[in-house]
Amino acid sequence: MSSTAELIDRAQNLAAAAGRPVEPSHGRLNPLGLREVRIEGGFWGERQELNAGAIIEHCEHWVDKMGWVDNFDAAVEGRLPADRTGREFADSDVYKLIEAMAWEIGRTNDSAMDARLRALVARIAPVQEEDGYLNTHFGRPGQAAKYSDLQWGHELYCYGHLLQAAVARGRTVGDDQLVQIARRAADHVCEVFGVGGIESVCGHPEIETALVEFSRYTGDPRYLEQARLFVERRGHGVLGDIEFGRSYYQDDVPVRDATVMAGHSVRAMYLAAGAIDVAVETDDEDLVSAIIGQLSETLAKRTYITGGMGAHHEGESFGADFELPSDRAYSETCAGVGSIMLNYRLLLATGDSAYADVIERTLFNVVAASPAADGRSFFYTNTLHQREPGSVPSGDEASPRASSSLRAPWFDVSCCPTNVARTLASLGAYLATSSADGLQIHQYAGGAITAPVAGGTVGVTVSTEYPVQGLVRVEVTDTVEGEWELTLRVPGWASVGATLTENGETRAVEPGAVSIRREFAVGEVIELSLPMAARWSAPDPRIDALRGQLAVERGPLVLCLESTDAPGITSVNEARILTELLDRTDEGEGVTVALREVTVADSGWPYGTGAVAGDDAPVTRAALRPYYSWANRGPSTMRIWLPVVGSDSVVPA
Amino acid sequence: MSSTAELIDRAQNLAAAAGRPVEPSHGRLNPLGLREVRIEGGFWGERQELNAGAIIEHCEHWVDKMGWVDNFDAAVEGRLPADRTGREFADSDVYKLIEAMAWEIGRTNDSAMDARLRALVARIAPVQEEDGYLNTHFGRPGQAAKYSDLQWGHELYCYGHLLQAAVARGRTVGDDQLVQIARRAADHVCEVFGVGGIESVCGHPEIETALVEFSRYTGDPRYLEQARLFVERRGHGVLGDIEFGRSYYQDDVPVRDATVMAGHSVRAMYLAAGAIDVAVETDDEDLVSAIIGQLSETLAKRTYITGGMGAHHEGESFGADFELPSDRAYSETCAGVGSIMLNYRLLLATGDSAYADVIERTLFNVVAASPAADGRSFFYTNTLHQREPGSVPSGDEASPRASSSLRAPWFDVSCCPTNVARTLASLGAYLATSSADGLQIHQYAGGAITAPVAGGTVGVTVSTEYPVQGLVRVEVTDTVEGEWELTLRVPGWASVGATLTENGETRAVEPGAVSIRREFAVGEVIELSLPMAARWSAPDPRIDALRGQLAVERGPLVLCLESTDAPGITSVNEARILTELLDRTDEGEGVTVALREVTVADSGWPYGTGAVAGDDAPVTRAALRPYYSWANRGPSTMRIWLPVVGSDSVVPA
Repeated sequence: MSSTAELIDRAQNLAAAAGRPVEPSHGRLNPLGLREVRIEGGFWGERQELNAGAIIEHCEHWVDKMGWVDNFDAAVEGRLPADRTGREFADSDVYKLIEAMAWEIGRTNDSAMDARLRALVARIAPVQEEDGYLNTHFGRPGQAAKYSDLQWGHELYCYGHLLQAAVARGRTVGDDQLVQIARRAADHVCEVFGVGGIESVCGHPEIETALVEFSRYTGDPRYLEQARLFVERRGHGVLGDIEFGRSYYQDDVPVRDATVMAGHSVRAMYLAAGAIDVAVETDDEDLVSAIIGQLSETLAKRTYITGGMGAHHEGESFGADFELPSDRAYSETCAGVGSIMLNYRLLLATGDSAYADVIERTLFNVVAASPAADGRSFFYTNTLHQREPGSVPSGDEASPRASSSLRAPWFDVSCCPTNVARTLASLGAYLATSSADGLQIHQYAGGAITAPVAGGTVGVTVSTEYPVQGLVRVEVTDTVEGEWELTLRVPGWASVGATLTENGETRAVEPGAVSIRREFAVGEVIELSLPMAARWSAPDPRIDALRGQLAVERGPLVLCLESTDAPGITSVNEARILTELLDRTDEGEGVTVALREVTVADSGWPYGTGAVAGDDAPVTRAALRPYYSWANRGPSTMRIWLPVVGSDSVVPA
Repeated sequence: MSSTAELIDRAQNLAAAAGRPVEPSHGRLNPLGLREVRIEGGFWGERQELNAGAIIEHCEHWVDKMGWVDNFDAAVEGRLPADRTGREFADSDVYKLIEAMAWEIGRTNDSAMDARLRALVARIAPVQEEDGYLNTHFGRPGQAAKYSDLQWGHELYCYGHLLQAAVARGRTVGDDQLVQIARRAADHVCEVFGVGGIESVCGHPEIETALVEFSRYTGDPRYLEQARLFVERRGHGVLGDIEFGRSYYQDDVPVRDATVMAGHSVRAMYLAAGAIDVAVETDDEDLVSAIIGQLSETLAKRTYITGGMGAHHEGESFGADFELPSDRAYSETCAGVGSIMLNYRLLLATGDSAYADVIERTLFNVVAASPAADGRSFFYTNTLHQREPGSVPSGDEASPRASSSLRAPWFDVSCCPTNVARTLASLGAYLATSSADGLQIHQYAGGAITAPVAGGTVGVTVSTEYPVQGLVRVEVTDTVEGEWELTLRVPGWASVGATLTENGETRAVEPGAVSIRREFAVGEVIELSLPMAARWSAPDPRIDALRGQLAVERGPLVLCLESTDAPGITSVNEARILTELLDRTDEGEGVTVALREVTVADSGWPYGTGAVAGDDAPVTRAALRPYYSWANRGPSTMRIWLPVVGSDSVVPA
């Protein structure tokens, strides 16, 4: 590991310039920052614009409207607890918003937003106590004592988001008031929760990954050590038992002994992200292996086709292996964000492009699904099957956490909108990495990338209509003397038909990563062509909820049937699909399918001789469209997994 | 309606002698009591013995061990709130236990149990305040104010169970200290919650049905009117909104406007039972129709094959129509008890034997499934698919409400064991009814029945091995001059092959009810023969969770595959059934099936080309056994719905 002085130097110079959200001291791949990877137009460019033009402002409006910023003023003015609003963790959404703004300012140099960020920080600063403690929910007369409720209090969780916001600020603008607040908070955490202090953990992991990143940013190894302590303590029953069981907050099994993700899915993902951060920085190969094994099992047995995680509304948790009901999918947006955090860290550590596959799937089918087309309402949970249209949430009131299937402008527990905002603002960083050898492009979006390699800086521009089309055009704009390696990910789903074209020659490439090692000339173009024809996916037979059903995917997009697109049928619940894809083209985002409606004999009891097969029902056509775009045209029913004609049970003759 | 004086007379004499849990002033059928219907041996006789010999004593032990009885002593001794244990509603489990004991004493004249009951009541009595208020959780210094939390406080719910216990006592022994306590509590409720008082309701319905029954018992119309007020107030948002939404406690839609049961399933069932009680007593035909319609929709679209209700762990609630996942079935034991309460009231009101069908299904496949074979542990939830064996709950500690799939001795929220106990103790009453015309037998168990009819009393003995065998032998032991009508229910599942034999002649009978109207001679025998061959059931095609799966039922029993009975396969999750039932006989409780194991290609991602169909896997045989008996032989996996060979999805060629 580098010396502290070197680390500080690096953090202050390189990182501040590059805007890298995650910067491990070592790993197979090096991160790039959002000033090194610029997205321009296309699918993700449009979403960054939506974030800049609507989502962040929407979040600013709502944290204000909900009184969550006023909580800080109220603390200063002695109006707490009377005037406190929001749940225990309301402070954290202000911090996550600030993180989103910080990355956005780093990306665009938006000076008006910068002024608003400074104003927010200035309202938070005076709430911090002499010893660094900072929270609006605890410690005052009439409030519970500080750290009296580690299970549910979220104090350390709030610091975690504060630290992440500070890292965003530090790595884009440099040390400012926010970084100073964070440093005092981090010192306070080490003081209070270090060896001999409160030897426990926070009910909601987040402080772990934040402390490691803050250690990376500041170069102070104390923060890393504190994160390590938090990771190691967990799983030994240091928190009390609760109705959901200790697995809810991963306090039932030590992190390095767990074999699969369990319990609250956001907690599980944040914890694993922190654990891999600790493992990398401490060269703890066992811990790295444990996390890799857990994620592998989780992806194989506990993840939705969208990349979504969490099968239980109860406890917002993972279910048992293969317990993945479409209509009760929790698949919290924040769990998707957490999965991206974890997979990105593992991509950096191992270089395995399979992690980038998961990131792609989750970005397109969870994160992109959350905000409405106008950026002013959000999915908290991301169901895979909407049985009933449901009612439209109020545009003016926060919704209960997960009660509505339609996007709501805000939630009583509103972690998701600000999580989407900070992810979109920092998205550039997730697209590409570098090594001494060269540049790796993992996610395809139009824009420009520069990367430090041995011998200088290389650069490319990427032109693509992905995922509408599968052609990705990479033009070298900057090169170095001698050989270097350009690596392009070939997604796992592109098992047949992906090609690479260079120097006028086209060759087939396999899923994984295709690398070109040679000298490059400025102006030369490499083209990756990915097969974008819609394709069927069948579920593992152990997923009972999906028996007899198929899904259609196109490129990285999971498609769905929305009732809006199938006016010929009663509801998506009665639709049965004929297994032939119609009007397949390699352009556009959807595909047409043929449907028959199953005939259901109404009776007073739903168990008997079974369905009428519906073989003679008229065939209608319906467009399958990308899942991320559903529910933007009014209340509807929707399903990703489509029952095949003839799959309904009948009693044997 | 009769005059008050007449009602009192009737309650004190007839009802006290008969031991009838429910006694509407009018209806198509009249209830019989547990002194009129005596169960001897057989399936339900064994369970009544288990209740008498183990379950009730087990509950006495645990309410004591948990400190829930001491709460009353602590109240008297001024040790509250410091010494209070249990949840808000802990008092209610003591009351439900007393109700169980009261019915049991009425059934068996167990004098030792009678002494214990009196001792319990004597500890409760001094806690009642001058104005009738009685609760260990509210109103003292350091406790929340009385009625300050109607949403979650359960004060009226506790009175409800107190009143039901008093009715049990009154109708078996007559007015005693418990009835006096209940009367003061009921008067207090009318005082405080009457017109001009607190015009709200309890978050958990129960007081409604209890007040009506107490009104029937005492003849005091005030209690009925108060119940009517509670029913009518509900659904207008009189309780606050909560995270689960107001539908959780049925405060979103007025009772008479609802079209289907929704929200917390126990609450929904108890409320509907109370509403039908009010409707019957006030001749409110609209309300009767509303409840009938709601139950009809609920049975057709929101009920498990076991009769179990509640598809969500989150909020312990009903799901959407046809959202009935086997592996997340909540199917709380208490919801089964509530369903029996409701269906019994509708059977009395309408005479429709379809309600007795539901009672039978729920008794055999929910209530009977809850207690272990030794009566010392219980299912709180009743899953239809156990994916993983799980761990054995501690025999010494209460379990979290619904975390374990194995029976636990007690729960932090322990409504179910005492609910099973009071149901089994009073079970006789649910077996048969009478009318001026004659006697109706709805549930088949060996024993003796006497019933008042016009002109005197008729009596029969029933001999049967039901449900092991399908023969029910009814011998007339007591008759009256002239014609009367003996009615036997032919269950809905007995659609082919049921026969009735009288006077040496056998004829086919159809599902519904078969009535014989004529003169009867003492000693003559009528035989009903029900077809007990195992039979397939296929699900409504809109139940996505059951696509490609079949269940096997035998008589009133739902069968299941438990891993214990299929040692040749890896787990029930991989078993695929061949659609031929082997070794079918008309005796015994199970049946043998042939299984193949599906081959699953292990991969890192569970969505791809689908299953290997497993057509060439070796065939093993396994016994399907009654669902109620599962998990009595150590940890296991289990499923009711069996995927058919070839039902697994594969990607189209």
